[in-house]
Amino acid sequence: MTPSPNLREALFGAPYVGLLPAGPHHTIADVPGVYVGHVTLAHGPVQTGVTVVCPTPADAGVASMPRTAPETGWDPFRAKIPAATAVINGFGKSVGLMQIDELGVLEAPVALTNTFSVSHVVLGQLHAAIAMNPEIGRGGPSLNPTVLECNDGYLNDMQAFAVTEAHYAQALANASSEVAQGAVGAGRGMSSFGLKGGIGSASRVVETAGAAYTVGVLVLSNFGRPSQLTIAGRHVGPVLDARLAQPEQSAAPERGSIIMLVATDAPLDARQLRRVATRTGAGLARTGSVYGHGSGDIALAFTTGYTIAHDASGRVAPAALVPDPLLDPIFQATADATEQAILHALFASESVLGRDAHVRRALADVLPDWAAL
Amino acid sequence: MTPSPNLREALFGAPYVGLLPAGPHHTIADVPGVYVGHVTLAHGPVQTGVTVVCPTPADAGVASMPRTAPETGWDPFRAKIPAATAVINGFGKSVGLMQIDELGVLEAPVALTNTFSVSHVVLGQLHAAIAMNPEIGRGGPSLNPTVLECNDGYLNDMQAFAVTEAHYAQALANASSEVAQGAVGAGRGMSSFGLKGGIGSASRVVETAGAAYTVGVLVLSNFGRPSQLTIAGRHVGPVLDARLAQPEQSAAPERGSIIMLVATDAPLDARQLRRVATRTGAGLARTGSVYGHGSGDIALAFTTGYTIAHDASGRVAPAALVPDPLLDPIFQATADATEQAILHALFASESVLGRDAHVRRALADVLPDWAAL
Amino acid sequence: MTPSPNLREALFGAPYVGLLPAGPHHTIADVPGVYVGHVTLAHGPVQTGVTVVCPTPADAGVASMPRTAPETGWDPFRAKIPAATAVINGFGKSVGLMQIDELGVLEAPVALTNTFSVSHVVLGQLHAAIAMNPEIGRGGPSLNPTVLECNDGYLNDMQAFAVTEAHYAQALANASSEVAQGAVGAGRGMSSFGLKGGIGSASRVVETAGAAYTVGVLVLSNFGRPSQLTIAGRHVGPVLDARLAQPEQSAAPERGSIIMLVATDAPLDARQLRRVATRTGAGLARTGSVYGHGSGDIALAFTTGYTIAHDASGRVAPAALVPDPLLDPIFQATADATEQAILHALFASESVLGRDAHVRRALADVLPDWAAL
Amino acid sequence: MTPSPNLREALFGAPYVGLLPAGPHHTIADVPGVYVGHVTLAHGPVQTGVTVVCPTPADAGVASMPRTAPETGWDPFRAKIPAATAVINGFGKSVGLMQIDELGVLEAPVALTNTFSVSHVVLGQLHAAIAMNPEIGRGGPSLNPTVLECNDGYLNDMQAFAVTEAHYAQALANASSEVAQGAVGAGRGMSSFGLKGGIGSASRVVETAGAAYTVGVLVLSNFGRPSQLTIAGRHVGPVLDARLAQPEQSAAPERGSIIMLVATDAPLDARQLRRVATRTGAGLARTGSVYGHGSGDIALAFTTGYTIAHDASGRVAPAALVPDPLLDPIFQATADATEQAILHALFASESVLGRDAHVRRALADVLPDWAAL
Repeated sequence: MTPSPNLREALFGAPYVGLLPAGPHHTIADVPGVYVGHVTLAHGPVQTGVTVVCPTPADAGVASMPRTAPETGWDPFRAKIPAATAVINGFGKSVGLMQIDELGVLEAPVALTNTFSVSHVVLGQLHAAIAMNPEIGRGGPSLNPTVLECNDGYLNDMQAFAVTEAHYAQALANASSEVAQGAVGAGRGMSSFGLKGGIGSASRVVETAGAAYTVGVLVLSNFGRPSQLTIAGRHVGPVLDARLAQPEQSAAPERGSIIMLVATDAPLDARQLRRVATRTGAGLARTGSVYGHGSGDIALAFTTGYTIAHDASGRVAPAALVPDPLLDPIFQATADATEQAILHALFASESVLGRDAHVRRALADVLPDWAAL
Repeated sequence: MTPSPNLREALFGAPYVGLLPAGPHHTIADVPGVYVGHVTLAHGPVQTGVTVVCPTPADAGVASMPRTAPETGWDPFRAKIPAATAVINGFGKSVGLMQIDELGVLEAPVALTNTFSVSHVVLGQLHAAIAMNPEIGRGGPSLNPTVLECNDGYLNDMQAFAVTEAHYAQALANASSEVAQGAVGAGRGMSSFGLKGGIGSASRVVETAGAAYTVGVLVLSNFGRPSQLTIAGRHVGPVLDARLAQPEQSAAPERGSIIMLVATDAPLDARQLRRVATRTGAGLARTGSVYGHGSGDIALAFTTGYTIAHDASGRVAPAALVPDPLLDPIFQATADATEQAILHALFASESVLGRDAHVRRALADVLPDWAAL
Repeated sequence: MTPSPNLREALFGAPYVGLLPAGPHHTIADVPGVYVGHVTLAHGPVQTGVTVVCPTPADAGVASMPRTAPETGWDPFRAKIPAATAVINGFGKSVGLMQIDELGVLEAPVALTNTFSVSHVVLGQLHAAIAMNPEIGRGGPSLNPTVLECNDGYLNDMQAFAVTEAHYAQALANASSEVAQGAVGAGRGMSSFGLKGGIGSASRVVETAGAAYTVGVLVLSNFGRPSQLTIAGRHVGPVLDARLAQPEQSAAPERGSIIMLVATDAPLDARQLRRVATRTGAGLARTGSVYGHGSGDIALAFTTGYTIAHDASGRVAPAALVPDPLLDPIFQATADATEQAILHALFASESVLGRDAHVRRALADVLPDWAAL
Repeated sequence: MTPSPNLREALFGAPYVGLLPAGPHHTIADVPGVYVGHVTLAHGPVQTGVTVVCPTPADAGVASMPRTAPETGWDPFRAKIPAATAVINGFGKSVGLMQIDELGVLEAPVALTNTFSVSHVVLGQLHAAIAMNPEIGRGGPSLNPTVLECNDGYLNDMQAFAVTEAHYAQALANASSEVAQGAVGAGRGMSSFGLKGGIGSASRVVETAGAAYTVGVLVLSNFGRPSQLTIAGRHVGPVLDARLAQPEQSAAPERGSIIMLVATDAPLDARQLRRVATRTGAGLARTGSVYGHGSGDIALAFTTGYTIAHDASGRVAPAALVPDPLLDPIFQATADATEQAILHALFASESVLGRDAHVRRALADVLPDWAAL
């Protein structure tokens, strides 16, 4: 991969942070084989959706798009993706993490949605996997559904249970390397720092171990109190707090969360990916988060550098791995891209009117002068 | 509580194991305030169900039965139960564990079911909690559903998705202190050591820290290869293996799991309950398990000794706790009751004919002479 | 405690960060009962030392100074301090953490030193504890020594093994509420961002659960590459990197580490203290750290709010605890005080000449104009 | 390796347990490249020692004996050994585990000793490593000493601090494939079930992933109350308890511990080795342990199947690994060899008279008729 010329500007008017260049799209889709699809539900009190991040492995022989139908060759259940998690604050209801911790693999695309819709998306994943592998749950083991969530209940009427199983398949079918950001997909109803949050993504390119690798991050950003907001080191939170004039919001306990997905093409094993996932906490902290009590701050990292066969009758050689002492550039990229992705979510989002006349305004509306504060 | 006279005999013809006396019922319901309810689905290829373990706290003022309707006073979301987990082998799809690890509380009854039915039972839990607390997921935080599972796919057609949301409420309504065991509830389709497994329960009474406490265990037992079976120290596995004459079963990788729920009225905090939950692994091992690769071996321990308020505006004194150096009797009771509960599941179960003419025979049929082997 | 007037300025010319006021000393000694003592060794190639943080519990009845001799009443082995750890990056050789994780208590003052001197300080701790409790390791259990470390090998000749057992007792005897910072004690030979690091401390005062509490942090700061340095949000690393003109240093893998000790008088249990310890990672990240591969980033949090008896024959009531939903101010204070303490270490340190003509210059020398960059 | 004919009898008159054959020596030294050395101190109140387990990797080109001097080629600091730990009960003072958890490697031979002697053995390890790598702690990172311990204070006067740095080098020099067991080395003063414990070792040979592999275990056994003892499933504890007639011992809280080292030549990564280490808990439980409060039950597993270079400038291919679904035979071997090794420690030990006329009698003296009970 020759990511030239590298972007050193952020998207959506956000400042560019950190030390490293971005990839060509400046999103998680810069990691070869990673695609993102959304379904957005936005009608009245329903402001929510589903987002799917699909890691097509490099060795799957899939040219341009994720293909999950059996005829196209790649099946995440049979060619599993090395992965690991980091639970920074475990106040959350994401599913699938325990088995990833034990076995070090992802066996389905990663889906994001609101807290109450996890079950429906799980069912969507199960049915998609059974369609490709009819023995799942019969002759063979069952699938490990992987669905992560945030609570969008301020804008979205979660009790409407608007997301259905079919939305998972639809989001997957929408997957492409063009990553829409802001108030889309699972990010539709999310809030951050008292502003509109949502989906953000970023990438960084590093050189280490004799090669160039890409680190991409996609966040579902739904955390933070106004007074905490820090943009590229600038602590604008107090001004934001004053402008929002929502004393009841400022004083309320944080009920947000953030899901941080990290993709890379660097070949790493699960232990190393756990180390990578942990570094999202550094990028998150730079934006002002202190990992609030009520915020489920969860990271999941995976590599498309190689796959692990579901069935193997003998020893299997993994890819040659980047040694631990050469991981620092990847750690830096993870922290930088996480911070950047959170900023992208804020800067990309439009204002949204949700249930019961609740509104979350866009950062662009409330803090157009952030750089001068 | 005066558990006198204590039983020193097991149920169902199983041998009595360990060093300590049992409580009057010899089940998890010996722990004051703990009730168990089942829904069993048994028709043709559908052999599955739901089991609910309901920890009514001692201080809830509920005399005799679990009450989850708002009018009866106790609401697990508002008066949370101290709890902790131990993941002995994380090949599983149980939900709710991450938040219990972070916050140290259970806020719903614990439900058990088959792997594919977790989502439906989660939805049942959500709706039950919303009915009692309409602000869940709106003004307030969302519920942490707690549903644990094993894969009953050998006997049960999991792809039929026979369990519905309504079965959760029905199992809860069935809760009582009479605990049916064997091929009932979530245990209907489970297998263990190539035999019929299912629901088992046991209890032990200990004295420590100047008082008597009860430890109760309920297992959803679905693990083990025939050659491993060890009954009260007697390694009968090789004989069982020969009698089953199922070479394809013996050679197949284990795809089971076991869920082990530990209840006690001893006042312990979450850190201590994690220590208790870990001791289930000792009881499990005595039956022959080596925590097989494909077996999700998961424990959850809770106390009914005190509750933790959902909302508190000031400091809260927990109950006076049993100090760590006095925990050994509780650890012994946990290991002994876990082994006993697994034996009860084996000895209580009847033979079951499931999907595709698959049969799991009862231990009583295959090894009536186990004590002489 | 009435921390009035609160400082809102930092020490040593450092900028004041975060949202909360500091306590009167602006150090960890603002937490009632916490004292700090140093022994500094600075002669030629030996540039190292020992620092002891001594948590005298509030209920020990000790008026003004830590007393570890038996006649003065308080003995940390018999009246244990609730504590917990967070391993952010486990590349380190600190001792004592495993048992703290299991039992949730500290039973000795916390000592800091260089990596190779851990053993000698452990022996000093053992002998001090045996002097007070002659049955340790005989009739009774042994002590859990708690000694944390960083590698000061750039300035200090660690192979000289200059720290002796006696230095531990001496540091303890030096303990007071006047906390010297910078190139003192265990911090004498430490480096940070290519500059002189060392000991830093800070405090914040919060109100929650109906009372005021203090959070104090003391760091042994020995981490960071020049290009990463961020001061109060200002990313001055690239300028620092250029000025240091140490390409071999900039390119070298980080071999530092940081130990972050958090003290509070808020009554919390061990599970909650683990949550507090985790928040140091947020403060650390704001200074530019991405938790480098070679950096042992370790936190330990304890409370002086109550103690846990070594021997108890019955149930024991802990203090009334701050409920989890009210922890956010304590989390904010932990992150803010950690960032502040790291800045204090940088701003307080003088330049040091160590072994083999190695020099670490003070931030004040290299970046006097940091605020204008 | 062709381990034929396999032993199916245990050593020292102990019963043979489990399902698998042993290797030729029936000790951890059946794993190619693993050697064990002891130093035993036995004079009056000093009854203790040091044991070193030295994993010479298969690819070190060392024919028959561990060689740690630079001229012989193998240096564990430069060619690290993949490793992982499992903390079953963390009441212990072993050092080195945190870094093994983070980085997945062992970089020194594993040493065992009594609790108070850990520091001296750490210093011995440091000096040995510095002799081979003079840059340790200067230009380069420091060594991660790995010293595990149990408390032998009932027989041994730990306060005599009889173990010195030199004993580590001496134990290493004594390393061979002839593994002395019982009251030797670090096991000299250890107790188990009120009897004499100490060093025990065992092995099992498995076939999986198309090849034969050996699993070897060495334990430092110092745990268990008399009433718990279970020999090959036979619960002889109550008889033992009566015969020992030591009510004060039986009633006393357990202050033991057990260290369980697992070696294999099966190529596994650190995540898989953690899974292996966890299975020692199953073997331990079969002997009657419930992981007592005061017992530091710690496991460490490593493979000699490949090494990880200290310095690598590019990607590195690990060995082809055994896939997770084929690990069950290795799990079975780990549990079986752990149980067997504990029995070997009991059956091999002679009675020992220690400090203050304390005596621990051999199982052979107290329970010669165990098989008939």
